[in-house]
Amino acid sequence: MIRVGIVGAIGYGGRELTRLLGIHPEAELVAAVELEGGTRLDDLLPQFRKLTDVVCETFDAETLAKRCDAVFIAVPGTKSMALGAALRAAGVRTIDMGPDFRIQDPAAFRQYYKVEHTAPELLPEAVYGLVPYYREQLRDAQLVAVPGCYPASVVFPLKPLIDAPLADVPIVVDAISGMTGAGRALAEAFHFPEMNENVKAYKVGVHQHTPEIEQELGNKFLVQFTPHVGPYSRGILSTITVHLKETIQVAPYYECYVDEPFVRVLGEGRLAELKHVRGSTFCDFGWVMDTRTRNLVIVSAIDNLVGGTAGMAIQCFNLMFGLDERTGLAFGGMAP
Amino acid sequence: MIRVGIVGAIGYGGRELTRLLGIHPEAELVAAVELEGGTRLDDLLPQFRKLTDVVCETFDAETLAKRCDAVFIAVPGTKSMALGAALRAAGVRTIDMGPDFRIQDPAAFRQYYKVEHTAPELLPEAVYGLVPYYREQLRDAQLVAVPGCYPASVVFPLKPLIDAPLADVPIVVDAISGMTGAGRALAEAFHFPEMNENVKAYKVGVHQHTPEIEQELGNKFLVQFTPHVGPYSRGILSTITVHLKETIQVAPYYECYVDEPFVRVLGEGRLAELKHVRGSTFCDFGWVMDTRTRNLVIVSAIDNLVGGTAGMAIQCFNLMFGLDERTGLAFGGMAP
Amino acid sequence: MIRVGIVGAIGYGGRELTRLLGIHPEAELVAAVELEGGTRLDDLLPQFRKLTDVVCETFDAETLAKRCDAVFIAVPGTKSMALGAALRAAGVRTIDMGPDFRIQDPAAFRQYYKVEHTAPELLPEAVYGLVPYYREQLRDAQLVAVPGCYPASVVFPLKPLIDAPLADVPIVVDAISGMTGAGRALAEAFHFPEMNENVKAYKVGVHQHTPEIEQELGNKFLVQFTPHVGPYSRGILSTITVHLKETIQVAPYYECYVDEPFVRVLGEGRLAELKHVRGSTFCDFGWVMDTRTRNLVIVSAIDNLVGGTAGMAIQCFNLMFGLDERTGLAFGGMAP
Amino acid sequence: MIRVGIVGAIGYGGRELTRLLGIHPEAELVAAVELEGGTRLDDLLPQFRKLTDVVCETFDAETLAKRCDAVFIAVPGTKSMALGAALRAAGVRTIDMGPDFRIQDPAAFRQYYKVEHTAPELLPEAVYGLVPYYREQLRDAQLVAVPGCYPASVVFPLKPLIDAPLADVPIVVDAISGMTGAGRALAEAFHFPEMNENVKAYKVGVHQHTPEIEQELGNKFLVQFTPHVGPYSRGILSTITVHLKETIQVAPYYECYVDEPFVRVLGEGRLAELKHVRGSTFCDFGWVMDTRTRNLVIVSAIDNLVGGTAGMAIQCFNLMFGLDERTGLAFGGMAP
Repeated sequence: MIRVGIVGAIGYGGRELTRLLGIHPEAELVAAVELEGGTRLDDLLPQFRKLTDVVCETFDAETLAKRCDAVFIAVPGTKSMALGAALRAAGVRTIDMGPDFRIQDPAAFRQYYKVEHTAPELLPEAVYGLVPYYREQLRDAQLVAVPGCYPASVVFPLKPLIDAPLADVPIVVDAISGMTGAGRALAEAFHFPEMNENVKAYKVGVHQHTPEIEQELGNKFLVQFTPHVGPYSRGILSTITVHLKETIQVAPYYECYVDEPFVRVLGEGRLAELKHVRGSTFCDFGWVMDTRTRNLVIVSAIDNLVGGTAGMAIQCFNLMFGLDERTGLAFGGMAP
Repeated sequence: MIRVGIVGAIGYGGRELTRLLGIHPEAELVAAVELEGGTRLDDLLPQFRKLTDVVCETFDAETLAKRCDAVFIAVPGTKSMALGAALRAAGVRTIDMGPDFRIQDPAAFRQYYKVEHTAPELLPEAVYGLVPYYREQLRDAQLVAVPGCYPASVVFPLKPLIDAPLADVPIVVDAISGMTGAGRALAEAFHFPEMNENVKAYKVGVHQHTPEIEQELGNKFLVQFTPHVGPYSRGILSTITVHLKETIQVAPYYECYVDEPFVRVLGEGRLAELKHVRGSTFCDFGWVMDTRTRNLVIVSAIDNLVGGTAGMAIQCFNLMFGLDERTGLAFGGMAP
Repeated sequence: MIRVGIVGAIGYGGRELTRLLGIHPEAELVAAVELEGGTRLDDLLPQFRKLTDVVCETFDAETLAKRCDAVFIAVPGTKSMALGAALRAAGVRTIDMGPDFRIQDPAAFRQYYKVEHTAPELLPEAVYGLVPYYREQLRDAQLVAVPGCYPASVVFPLKPLIDAPLADVPIVVDAISGMTGAGRALAEAFHFPEMNENVKAYKVGVHQHTPEIEQELGNKFLVQFTPHVGPYSRGILSTITVHLKETIQVAPYYECYVDEPFVRVLGEGRLAELKHVRGSTFCDFGWVMDTRTRNLVIVSAIDNLVGGTAGMAIQCFNLMFGLDERTGLAFGGMAP
Repeated sequence: MIRVGIVGAIGYGGRELTRLLGIHPEAELVAAVELEGGTRLDDLLPQFRKLTDVVCETFDAETLAKRCDAVFIAVPGTKSMALGAALRAAGVRTIDMGPDFRIQDPAAFRQYYKVEHTAPELLPEAVYGLVPYYREQLRDAQLVAVPGCYPASVVFPLKPLIDAPLADVPIVVDAISGMTGAGRALAEAFHFPEMNENVKAYKVGVHQHTPEIEQELGNKFLVQFTPHVGPYSRGILSTITVHLKETIQVAPYYECYVDEPFVRVLGEGRLAELKHVRGSTFCDFGWVMDTRTRNLVIVSAIDNLVGGTAGMAIQCFNLMFGLDERTGLAFGGMAP
């Protein structure tokens, strides 16, 4: 068994990783780092009673490195760069589910995250965990930056179109996320009665996933990324409108995904829905080529906590440890 | 009291109209047409027990015309043109909450609604019920076509921009509606367990509200309208992305709405939310002018059944009968 | 117009009262007390933009008494007794939507609310606002204690059964409330992702509405009151199981409600649903007499914020000011 | 690999079983019976694309028996007795997730299910799949009747109390289920806009799970079982009120469950919540002993599709095929 530690086990990403590790046949959770050091993990997360005896500990990179083959970091953005640096210094392979090691340009990081990066020297070795595009580098990676949930839902369908005849106007991405995307920090906006039956947009024009999306598209396009939240827990639906110089045959651009285990190309006129990916690692997408407007409208779906976070992280982990990359992930969405 | 009849009282639009008529001090519901003629309305709709003694009747235009000062039609699209023609022939003022009298071009109607219009001779006299733009015509209108819910949420913010320096690319509208937008007809897609925690797009590029939106913008722009449905009952949030030739000052374009009772311009950086309009007649919107992309991103909110249907219909009715147009509508959203 | 003030306008009860006052033809909101004195009410509650120019003020009983004919208090439990005492001393008629003046026995208040009552001298003059049972006293009341939401849903169906042949075992009440029942104070338990798709019970055996229910039943019965919360915003469904010494004919016990405007007796085998009361002042109930078990099972429904709070408060207000008690309330539930 | 067939793969129980079989390391789905014979399973259930190549077939017991080591039946109540009889005749081990083989008394079956049992001769050999109580019989079972979802949530906490000093009055069970409990058959009552924000009771006094619960409690008690549905997809919360002759120490009665892998006794004052069991096989429960009323109030939680159906079925399957009974099930709830 491969011994695994989690830093930040009780956040939403950490909980989902813990759940998925229960399914994984080759990995064992041996350490959980939380502020509540000394408390049993299943006292904090009763859903894991009778499944784990792990007692939470406070962060100590050396200790973790001795007892773990891999450590996942699942803490809020800007909080993982220091932890990641310490874990790398201690020599343990590290998988960061947060944003700190995704943006290669420290200036862009500063602009969007409003802090200075404290470990820029690690950026060159960090491998972006979007498996179809970084599969080989991931096998030997010591530090993985798991993609953001929104970027995964956008880059999967857009990256193959880099050489398509796109018009010179910004790509429009309107994406809606379930409430878990905002994490477990309390806020009046996310109080149940405030969000139930509500939908709204936020961070228009300034969301921190914008530079990540543009970076992974080779910084060849401007992306107008408008995130929304809706009254449900999980899942991101991204509607992507691409203006073209001419109508194209779309399907051939996506043949690259035919053997990808967790990317499902639905085809022309078949639109993705959240329910088909919930609880699973898949990214689904389909499209309509609108000849009237010369717009290609793509709709993609991902579970932000699985295909957009913990499932992708385990897929990377599987590659890093020489396992079949589908190990512990080859199950379908929970619908209903 | 002004005597009112409803054709189609038990659909979602009809129910909401019935609820609002209970609030209205000058209107009285005297007739309800339903297939279940002979049944008390409050047997079909128990929420109205102890409030009405109306017994449903089957459709007869002459009878309605004798007993009603105004008749509202609240039936599915393509089903109201025959009813409306009969009511007009019988001489009663008619307010159609469906789409049949909105599109002035019968060819566009045929293309999007897939049927031939059977009363095209009435189209010239039908007044489109978007009050700020048709207020004077509404006072004397004999036949009103209440705007569609999506179009209302899109045309309010876009129409004042007609003379702005828009780039020559389609306007992108990604809108999400609650499930009442699909009406009360059963479908597997709208079975509770199928839609809960689900979001999806539908009718991409072919939705019948596209020509209505373009018509009310003077057919000067192409609109890429992509509707979605989400796991909640009421409300439409429309996110509108307009590419501009140059950055503009936006606020002055919206001064036209300062005295409009039911259009609320929130301003730069203030984005509309569904919860602030639920159950009320308001359309709220705000925007971000993104100088990086030269896109103007507008977010508008409307309750599809009130501001998008029954409330707008009553506002028209008030004008038609010489009442203050706010009568029976001057209350705020139900939040939470 | 009767001039009205609200102390606590931005809590959920206060918001709903503000919404309903917009509908009421004889009342005008002239004062709103909030911690944020000096702020426009519609800046705090954007759903009321273009509807009110009221600027919030801090609490001053004398000032309120001069400008208002009636003051509603809508603050959390145990916070209104001091406010109510000050308002009464200033001579203004006061309607408290909180629990502080409901329990006539200060010892029971202390036991369940964990504080000493600071204005017990006002308890004798406080009139319990359950209209069918206190209608005459309400006309001249200077201080009204609006019933709790759970108690209203339970006492309406149970009080007429006081003389029925009940067995000598506790009455079982399992009630479920929407999340607004917990108010707007943030708590991890009510964070959207924690409560969505969740149901739970709370305060089993110790909920503070227990003595209120038992008091209004004449302290003749023990009530096992088990409250729950579910993943929705509004409404209380109470399922009441009464063990009987013998099977009874139930309908005659409820003839007392035939002319009550806001109590709707659905009858044998017709069970109440939340959707039929949402947004309205009604309490609906029906029942099954189970001859196999000799249990009478009653199911009642109320909107906790309207029929259970603000609507009931306005019904009391109408009586106090000589209006038809249905004024501003005679509309049906919002379904859907 | 143990070869498995499902009759009724696209119902909600069948879908969940298909999902769980994807996780199970020793079982392989080789046959799916549906009306749509000839269609790929993943065309009917897109969440399983890239996971299965199974093509649906129509029912043929002989064919299934040849190709499968075990067949699960997941069809609506009263539809499985004929299928089960055919499968048993063909000699394949059969696990019925429906109610047809649960009730040992054909008269009770007829009374509650309104049809005559067509295979009563199989009832003696059918083993009730409530593992803690039938573990040994399950190892050799040829025909298993998986318990109902409501009964599992009620019998787990009640069965150990059979010898407690219960008063001679009916036990009160008020249970609430998510909408998947009603299956995928369309009905206006379960149309999204009708059930969202709604709660209601149904089949009061006549629900078909009543005799199943009473049977498993040895027919020693009357149970007043009142089921409800609420606006969410999954999970049953059962609130059980037991009147006692005297106050008892409760914990010792539940020591029987200390080593049960999927029953979690939370203890005094710790109440179960749906979120901790969602997507998992656990039944959680806790209680309050109310000395004031001499009532024991127990709250239990189960995921109706997993712990209440497909997970329990796999636990039985594991026992039948000599596997560790936790195989493929040892993961925690999906929260959030």
